[in-house]
Amino acid sequence: MTSEEESAAAPAAGSFDEHNLTQTVLQSVAGAKDPRVKQISEALIRHLHAFIREIEPTEAEWGAAIEFLTKTGHMCTDTRQEFILLSDVLGVSMLVDAINHRLPGRATETTVFGPFYVEPPSFEDGADMRGYLEGVPLYLSGTVRNEAGEPIVGAKVDIWHSNDEGYYDLQKLEERSELAGRGRFLSQSDGSFRAWTVRPAAYPIPNDGPVGKMLDAQGRHPFRPEHVHYMITAPGYRRLVTHLFAQGDKYLTSDVVFGVKSSLIRNYEPREGGTAPDGKAMDGKWLELHHDFVLAHVA
Amino acid sequence: MTSEEESAAAPAAGSFDEHNLTQTVLQSVAGAKDPRVKQISEALIRHLHAFIREIEPTEAEWGAAIEFLTKTGHMCTDTRQEFILLSDVLGVSMLVDAINHRLPGRATETTVFGPFYVEPPSFEDGADMRGYLEGVPLYLSGTVRNEAGEPIVGAKVDIWHSNDEGYYDLQKLEERSELAGRGRFLSQSDGSFRAWTVRPAAYPIPNDGPVGKMLDAQGRHPFRPEHVHYMITAPGYRRLVTHLFAQGDKYLTSDVVFGVKSSLIRNYEPREGGTAPDGKAMDGKWLELHHDFVLAHVA
Repeated sequence: MTSEEESAAAPAAGSFDEHNLTQTVLQSVAGAKDPRVKQISEALIRHLHAFIREIEPTEAEWGAAIEFLTKTGHMCTDTRQEFILLSDVLGVSMLVDAINHRLPGRATETTVFGPFYVEPPSFEDGADMRGYLEGVPLYLSGTVRNEAGEPIVGAKVDIWHSNDEGYYDLQKLEERSELAGRGRFLSQSDGSFRAWTVRPAAYPIPNDGPVGKMLDAQGRHPFRPEHVHYMITAPGYRRLVTHLFAQGDKYLTSDVVFGVKSSLIRNYEPREGGTAPDGKAMDGKWLELHHDFVLAHVA
Repeated sequence: MTSEEESAAAPAAGSFDEHNLTQTVLQSVAGAKDPRVKQISEALIRHLHAFIREIEPTEAEWGAAIEFLTKTGHMCTDTRQEFILLSDVLGVSMLVDAINHRLPGRATETTVFGPFYVEPPSFEDGADMRGYLEGVPLYLSGTVRNEAGEPIVGAKVDIWHSNDEGYYDLQKLEERSELAGRGRFLSQSDGSFRAWTVRPAAYPIPNDGPVGKMLDAQGRHPFRPEHVHYMITAPGYRRLVTHLFAQGDKYLTSDVVFGVKSSLIRNYEPREGGTAPDGKAMDGKWLELHHDFVLAHVA
């Protein structure tokens, strides 16, 4: 029996009405070959129909929903992913992240990957990765260890962040076609790493598209609190994608993409002059941000 | 208090985790000014999160979902609406139709509008609207009455259908830039109308895009059973958008968009030679399709 005959056999002729429609649509996917496709299709139909039955949209409202999705699709390009933004601001990206990172107690918590990662240039331990960015010097340091507290040597520590106005180098490529504010460092024999850069800033997610309009209608601001991105990888360990957030930022409790976890809020320690941990003599204001990362073993 | 301050005040710092995330996202839309926007946003968040929590997508699966939505958006043009197709094949269009047309008992049942309507050319009662289409002659007739059985005079009866291979004139505009198989007729003093055309055919919805791929993965065919579209409007009455389906069609029980209702399945009566109801002498095979339509008063 072909799948066409199977789905044709399911409902009785003319049985499609408001009351049995959901069941009829569920039956139509009964012939899916891949059980995961069947499971996801059935769940999608059930939850989507429950949503429609709850809100009872007018035809004009459903038309507006179609138009919203269409505009969201048309906004997507190689450098702008409006559907990821939509997933982010509805809390779905963080929910998917949480479901996929139920980690052992000591492992560093994860947060959203975000749209601004590219493989960064490699630097020597302790080098300055700021590139053309200007701002208050920021000294980043930390260690990479496993759950037993043992140092992980040679872990790739990829770091990226915005400039002091909240823009990433990738958003400025038309003005200046070089990377800045991102770099790859390797953890040393004691698991430690260090890097110089400049302080980033809180910033709005791109809000000139349909998602920005939605946020506005929902009475929400488009800001993320100030943070530095880290991605840390090492053979045998689960990839860690996370941020360190700046303690005291006004958007910590209302991050538009819900990425904040209390264990990731850190003090960007303010310093003035003196000597940096790497022995460098400092003039004026600078900052220090230290964090010890713990990677979970691959299950 | 601004809406920004309101949403910032809601969750405690660092409280975003798998368990309270849905509640946190719900709180973020508490400041929506329009109560309907708030209601729809809250329902969307609850049902979308419930879907995610049920299927527990891997990060790769969620990435594939984002890619699917993006491709669906990119497929949409002025002449192709892939998100409406998606809504159709998931049964949502018919559900929205059903919710918005809980009509009094006698009123003709509604079904999907479909993507192939344009305002048609006007014809005299009984004229032939086939244009350049070829096929078996089909004589359409009927009456337009209200729920009390009184004839409605001067109702606009817009009729449209595919050719005998299942394509609409709108899909062939590059080959032949004229309309065919569509016309507007006015109901006469007794509420009656009549039109000549040619028999349409069952056909697949456009299935060369992401929705076609989804149907394939779900083990479903892309076909709609043979039908003629009607849209009937008259002042003081609710617009009626419906089809008449051909009895015996093999896709009646598995219409890919779930548009079939038993009251709309009609016999396309086969005739051979003789005299048509309008007195025309006929050669060879032809068909007759009669239906009495009932419009509901505007509430």
